[in-house]
Amino acid sequence: MYEMHFGVPMTGAVLNPINTRLDAKTIAIILRHAQPKMLFVDHEFAHLAREVLRLLPFDDSQPHPLIIFIDEIGSPRKHSSEELDYEGLIRRGDLTLSSSASMFRVHDENDPISLNYTSGTTADPKGVVVSHRGAYLSALSSIIGWEMGISLVYLWTLPMFHANGWTHTWSVAASGGTNVCLRHVTAPEIYKNIDLHGVTHMSCVPTVFRILLEGRRNDGSDKSRPIQVLTGGSPPPAGLLEKVQRIGFQVMHGYGLTEATGSVLFCEWQDEWNRLPEHQQMQLKARQGVRNITVEDVDVKNTKTQKSVPRDGKTMGEIVIKGNSVMKGYLRNPKATSESFKHGWLNTGDIGVIHPDGHVEIKDRSKDIIISGGENISSIEVERVLYGHLKVLEAAVVAMPHPLWGETPCAFVVLKKRETNKGRGEEELVTTERDLIDYCRENMPHFMCPRKVVFCQDLPRNSNGKILKSKLRDTAKALVVDEVNAGYKEVHRHGVSHVSSRL
Amino acid sequence: MYEMHFGVPMTGAVLNPINTRLDAKTIAIILRHAQPKMLFVDHEFAHLAREVLRLLPFDDSQPHPLIIFIDEIGSPRKHSSEELDYEGLIRRGDLTLSSSASMFRVHDENDPISLNYTSGTTADPKGVVVSHRGAYLSALSSIIGWEMGISLVYLWTLPMFHANGWTHTWSVAASGGTNVCLRHVTAPEIYKNIDLHGVTHMSCVPTVFRILLEGRRNDGSDKSRPIQVLTGGSPPPAGLLEKVQRIGFQVMHGYGLTEATGSVLFCEWQDEWNRLPEHQQMQLKARQGVRNITVEDVDVKNTKTQKSVPRDGKTMGEIVIKGNSVMKGYLRNPKATSESFKHGWLNTGDIGVIHPDGHVEIKDRSKDIIISGGENISSIEVERVLYGHLKVLEAAVVAMPHPLWGETPCAFVVLKKRETNKGRGEEELVTTERDLIDYCRENMPHFMCPRKVVFCQDLPRNSNGKILKSKLRDTAKALVVDEVNAGYKEVHRHGVSHVSSRL
Repeated sequence: MYEMHFGVPMTGAVLNPINTRLDAKTIAIILRHAQPKMLFVDHEFAHLAREVLRLLPFDDSQPHPLIIFIDEIGSPRKHSSEELDYEGLIRRGDLTLSSSASMFRVHDENDPISLNYTSGTTADPKGVVVSHRGAYLSALSSIIGWEMGISLVYLWTLPMFHANGWTHTWSVAASGGTNVCLRHVTAPEIYKNIDLHGVTHMSCVPTVFRILLEGRRNDGSDKSRPIQVLTGGSPPPAGLLEKVQRIGFQVMHGYGLTEATGSVLFCEWQDEWNRLPEHQQMQLKARQGVRNITVEDVDVKNTKTQKSVPRDGKTMGEIVIKGNSVMKGYLRNPKATSESFKHGWLNTGDIGVIHPDGHVEIKDRSKDIIISGGENISSIEVERVLYGHLKVLEAAVVAMPHPLWGETPCAFVVLKKRETNKGRGEEELVTTERDLIDYCRENMPHFMCPRKVVFCQDLPRNSNGKILKSKLRDTAKALVVDEVNAGYKEVHRHGVSHVSSRL
Repeated sequence: MYEMHFGVPMTGAVLNPINTRLDAKTIAIILRHAQPKMLFVDHEFAHLAREVLRLLPFDDSQPHPLIIFIDEIGSPRKHSSEELDYEGLIRRGDLTLSSSASMFRVHDENDPISLNYTSGTTADPKGVVVSHRGAYLSALSSIIGWEMGISLVYLWTLPMFHANGWTHTWSVAASGGTNVCLRHVTAPEIYKNIDLHGVTHMSCVPTVFRILLEGRRNDGSDKSRPIQVLTGGSPPPAGLLEKVQRIGFQVMHGYGLTEATGSVLFCEWQDEWNRLPEHQQMQLKARQGVRNITVEDVDVKNTKTQKSVPRDGKTMGEIVIKGNSVMKGYLRNPKATSESFKHGWLNTGDIGVIHPDGHVEIKDRSKDIIISGGENISSIEVERVLYGHLKVLEAAVVAMPHPLWGETPCAFVVLKKRETNKGRGEEELVTTERDLIDYCRENMPHFMCPRKVVFCQDLPRNSNGKILKSKLRDTAKALVVDEVNAGYKEVHRHGVSHVSSRL
């Protein structure tokens, strides 16, 4: 995936990193939409890729992409005659330095470099088109805002398919840094590689902090220099920040989104904060921060008046963004693109405040999104699947707090009724929580499935008939206690490798 | 000057920083060429500015610029009714935050932000036109390449009129750093301000190292964290680097030019070099380095074949540059512009090699330039002045090594002869070294004047009649021993304040 971030643009093609946690059906939707000419598949996902191909239509109007399998380094496998392997392909190329002259050079810097699908707030995956210019500037701004430096050794715990690893794929190269890649994100693997390669930086969603805390760093390892960690995806609780800093990780909090080509805000540390009590420091650190240097403007606006909210740390509004690194738009989706850009800014759907010192803090997310282990889950998409079940009349999905994933979907379901045989009334159809969850697991990526289903007679609505999700969220919050135990039990049952497979 | 770097572009105007070491005549040439509408003058240079105005033509075709005097902060002076003062002008403006909406926003990022005159290789000052885009990217690349960081406290020992302070004027703001300005660059002032403000970074020409070494840092000052120094302008001798590092300055060597909008190469430190003996480290550090991240390409090319030289650290060629930060051209000077860009690259006129590790090292400068205390002196310009002397027949000026300024001009002069009264022969006109040096001091900035004049019967020439300056340089090198003593004597006679006034 790292090599792809350079090789693909160097041929003049557009990169389309695929989230490996998606199921075959969703990947097939993406491929039908993106229409790639070539598909590079790591051997770990060979089975998934073959399943995807079976789901794709195969005709002249959209031929199947050419598949290139990537073997484990040092242990190549036999491929069928129709299957190409990556290293073999590379060996066929001209790798002499002199051939760099024939490298594709981008003619217009606003041309696309990558296409990144995001589930976003609506159901169908949307393809965010990122320009060379946007990626270039975003990559530089991370080097500056996070002080990546010129002696960088970067550990990949963040997937590169997430907004091109928040553009760090390119930042590391621009810094002349060293990449350390892991096949599985587990505590032993992380700690082993930190010691082995002298890791200086890593970025991750806050969920990885729990993995770090569950593991144990080698006694003999050099703890004199803290490892710089950039976190984002969901706001890290202050208490968690405190714990992870104590075991040698210096955390910077950032905020970004695929539509803005990676990081937009960095919580830049102010020297005078060093004099504050530790807990207060962590509260300051949990704020999303100030705009990075290459973003033209970030503002928080009243969604009705479109006026900037006062810098009081209290008045809420929508976070909006302007500048070079904002996406070109969603591929073949003018409606979603124009909605996303109404009023001339990129509308993030995230609700926040601005503090008197200019730091932005997110107070609430756009109501529908559930962020689980750093993944955006569209509640609408989960609901649509539930609506496909024969016995479901109505479904509303909201976030339920989860100790490991931050949030997880909780479904509120009203079942269909049928008239009784004597016409005297009606009775509800019968199904179980397990049945609905299993149904979801068959029809969407597992991480998107509800972990809890609550059956109800009615869903709460406002006077316009719109479902009051805020009320459902309150109910879901009360369910957290049981889920904590269930969650921990599951983690312990499946062990650390299960946890890592979700990241 | 710092405020001008923001205020001027924010009005949509182009900044034209003037070298305060120039004499009135040269400044008048620049103003006639640049045609500024306003001239901001620090009170220290009020006398010089009035002299410049007397030299300027005054007619409708080119009206005099409006002069704004900048008083010492806290001690405003009386001005005549025609003279405006800076703080008074600022007070008349609308400084509320809301007025930022009326700030000029650049329509085309390739529009000019500044005009920087350089004496360059030819006689007349040439106006380098720098674009917003070039300045922006160059400013960012310095933050990255020199690791300026987000807790920057920057001491200005580098004049801001030198390529906009190598674009650090904008880099410091982009980093959210603190500027510390000095009126006079002396050792006591430098050391006082380092302690007072907790300076982290400074940039300077190597001549400043001698000032640092002559002064003495306060015993009570915090020496735990070395001060990061970026140096350039002329190659720093390894021995000097070693000495200055021992007193708490961590030096990075860079290379740049006004035509490339500041720094182009940074000698980025490689961790494995830490294992080498100190003297070898300093030799590596004295190399100019690798290209910064926003420059598209830097190469060393054979000037005849235009082919890249091999990376052997031996084969010499001209250093050429390509990329965003390369100037738009010389103002109203298409001939110089096209000469400078022949073969599609910016030709620096500097001769260097590429080492196997990709680091560029300058081996020789373009033959005519003399670099004295970080100032480029055009030998052609000095020669032209000498040619204006009634008794001078021929003059050739070359660099002579100088222990304080690095180099200083040395003139080789052939005097005119007149026929003797009896027509039987001719005799040389008589003048003295002192007479010629005094004549130069009356006709050009003092720092450009030759410190040595050698009278000869003939100048050495090649078969095409071109003067062989390489031979003259060899002769000038032999003169260094006498000059060392003279140089040191002068420094001690005039004291440190004399040294600092040259910077």
